[in-house]
Amino acid sequence: MGDVQSDAQLPEVAGFRFAGIAAGIKNGGELDLGLVAADGPVATAAVFTENQVRAAPVELSAARLERGRAQAVLVNSGNANACTGKAGDRAARETTGAVADALGIDPAMVLPASTGVIGEPLPAERIVQAVPRLVAALSPGGAADFARAILTTDRGSKTAHRRVAVARNRQATVLGIAKGAGMIHPRMATTLAFVVTDAPMHSSFLRRALRQATDRSFNRVTVDRETSTNDTIVAMASGRVQAEALRGSGPEARKFMDALAGVLEELAKQVVADGEGAAHLVRVEVVGAPSEEAACKVAERVATSLLVKTALHGCDPNWGRIIAAAGMAGVAFDPSKVEIRFDDVIVARKGLAVGQVAEAAARQVMQRPEYTLRLRIGPGRARGHHYTCDLGHEYVRINADYRT
Amino acid sequence: MGDVQSDAQLPEVAGFRFAGIAAGIKNGGELDLGLVAADGPVATAAVFTENQVRAAPVELSAARLERGRAQAVLVNSGNANACTGKAGDRAARETTGAVADALGIDPAMVLPASTGVIGEPLPAERIVQAVPRLVAALSPGGAADFARAILTTDRGSKTAHRRVAVARNRQATVLGIAKGAGMIHPRMATTLAFVVTDAPMHSSFLRRALRQATDRSFNRVTVDRETSTNDTIVAMASGRVQAEALRGSGPEARKFMDALAGVLEELAKQVVADGEGAAHLVRVEVVGAPSEEAACKVAERVATSLLVKTALHGCDPNWGRIIAAAGMAGVAFDPSKVEIRFDDVIVARKGLAVGQVAEAAARQVMQRPEYTLRLRIGPGRARGHHYTCDLGHEYVRINADYRT
Repeated sequence: MGDVQSDAQLPEVAGFRFAGIAAGIKNGGELDLGLVAADGPVATAAVFTENQVRAAPVELSAARLERGRAQAVLVNSGNANACTGKAGDRAARETTGAVADALGIDPAMVLPASTGVIGEPLPAERIVQAVPRLVAALSPGGAADFARAILTTDRGSKTAHRRVAVARNRQATVLGIAKGAGMIHPRMATTLAFVVTDAPMHSSFLRRALRQATDRSFNRVTVDRETSTNDTIVAMASGRVQAEALRGSGPEARKFMDALAGVLEELAKQVVADGEGAAHLVRVEVVGAPSEEAACKVAERVATSLLVKTALHGCDPNWGRIIAAAGMAGVAFDPSKVEIRFDDVIVARKGLAVGQVAEAAARQVMQRPEYTLRLRIGPGRARGHHYTCDLGHEYVRINADYRT
Repeated sequence: MGDVQSDAQLPEVAGFRFAGIAAGIKNGGELDLGLVAADGPVATAAVFTENQVRAAPVELSAARLERGRAQAVLVNSGNANACTGKAGDRAARETTGAVADALGIDPAMVLPASTGVIGEPLPAERIVQAVPRLVAALSPGGAADFARAILTTDRGSKTAHRRVAVARNRQATVLGIAKGAGMIHPRMATTLAFVVTDAPMHSSFLRRALRQATDRSFNRVTVDRETSTNDTIVAMASGRVQAEALRGSGPEARKFMDALAGVLEELAKQVVADGEGAAHLVRVEVVGAPSEEAACKVAERVATSLLVKTALHGCDPNWGRIIAAAGMAGVAFDPSKVEIRFDDVIVARKGLAVGQVAEAAARQVMQRPEYTLRLRIGPGRARGHHYTCDLGHEYVRINADYRT
């Protein structure tokens, strides 16, 4: 599957350049404007928020991606350009138009993405003025600057990459960059992720691969059940590695899908671990289920339970809450068959308490920054998981008290 | 609709006696064992938790209610008798059997209900020993003791009552008693409600009336999205008011249903207002929807949003979060038509901010202990609502730090 080193030097990906600069959208001179540019139009796919309320850049990107090709993505942080009406649509067109002018390409090939405050006008003029400087800053090694420019309240950049064989002796690179840390700030919310690869494929394959990889990664993490108006994942493939285009479900195609899912899962875990005030990244794993869908439903319900998340915060192996949360998933199981464990410590067996010694041992496991909470719900063979984090005072403090 | 005075003297209801005593299930000598007894078998209906994991008393009550008649309900607080296996089933039978013996009636006519710690054995022997004292304490005026005996971490008793005409010059009484305060304590969770009336009806009518009233009351309140293993609402009708049995949907039947729904809504609101750490009871009202179902879905999604609930705690009229939460309900609407108001202060119109002055005024409204957050989502004629409370530090403190 290749390496996963989110903190190491980022690899270059043939056919792509990146930039990140400070355009004055945020106060304080932080980087707040990023650009990914391919050398020409390339296969591109995207997944957008399922929220009924979609920000202007989401609407425009979705429309521009209908034919599955794009050449650049313009990303700003500090302002979501959401709930901004017709002025917001104009701002998205003007700013991406400026990028198209500077690159000398078709404006329909430039996708916008925004994250930050909802309901305030995007400072389009400021962005347009900064675009020449942004384009001048493009470089194959600019991914680290780009990764910083898209952050809002994140504690740090989120990146992941893998190498994957797309033919005999032909390796491609998959590089992913994300932002997101739960719905932290009032009116700041969004998860954004951008993936570029030099592997060869048509956009139909890329679209399918991205959809599957998203289902296995970002759709299996929870900070607080909230979906923003701006959530966007974009994948672009330059095809600069010379090989037959990936297609179908042969071994190379599967390897690429695994690499893409691995990169997105790595990014998604970084987002959860950066959840507001979170000290623990917890993999909720459900085994013994009648189907993968059932297992995922139970895992998600446990992972989103407020009572479970506050218990995780308090390092309390409160299996009564866990089994009650599982029981709300709408999946039939026999409670008297349930086993619950924290890493290797079993706290409930056949739906009954194991005892105080086990609970004390589980309390130790729960001090770990990362651990697995596993429920066996029956004799089935299917499994599923969902990542979550603990929910504590910091979440309430930042979300309730920010403006008071 | 009659009076609603939850704090006043409780009315007596012909055909019913109540008791509440201290049986030593809780530490500290608090009341913890309650009994409702009718003079004979009466029409009885119940609604139980939809959680897959059902406590022993829920299973036994559901089985005993198949023919729609019961004579007594035995309720204990301090122990949920949930996740207790076969011993839990036996404990529910033994304790209700003792009540049947003391009253000289069929054990199948006695329903058990429990609330408290999950996963610990019910002290059945202690309860059995207390039953003679409990039965001796039964009196028509004992409802206040009963109301106290069923509490766990509630800040106070929850009662509501109405008078309703069931025929010309014939008034019946509906008296409701509940407990519940969100999922407060680790392993303490449940909402219980008991309603008695002297109105005449068959159990089929009572069952339908209770189902409808529950949909309009307890199914429209949210503390933290959690359903317990023990949630139970029981309604009993003695028929001691001499009149034709209520049936169908004539004016008397409708008046009774309204009274029953009113009593349950009053109890449900008291439960939400007692939500852990809650300072505000908020009615989330959605108007202009294409259907009542759609309106209720949007109201519920807004009412359960963590980001909205923490904003309510901070008195922050953060309409961006509210519109984003509405957008997650799976109901189609045009965001550019949305209006959002706090009581009489409009903060967003046509999906856009009204301005700083309106937000300041809304911040004042949000100081109130009770107010309405209203969303107009379109030109439709349907409306729906959901009650919620703010979520603050107390919730996290009690749920995360209780045992550490």
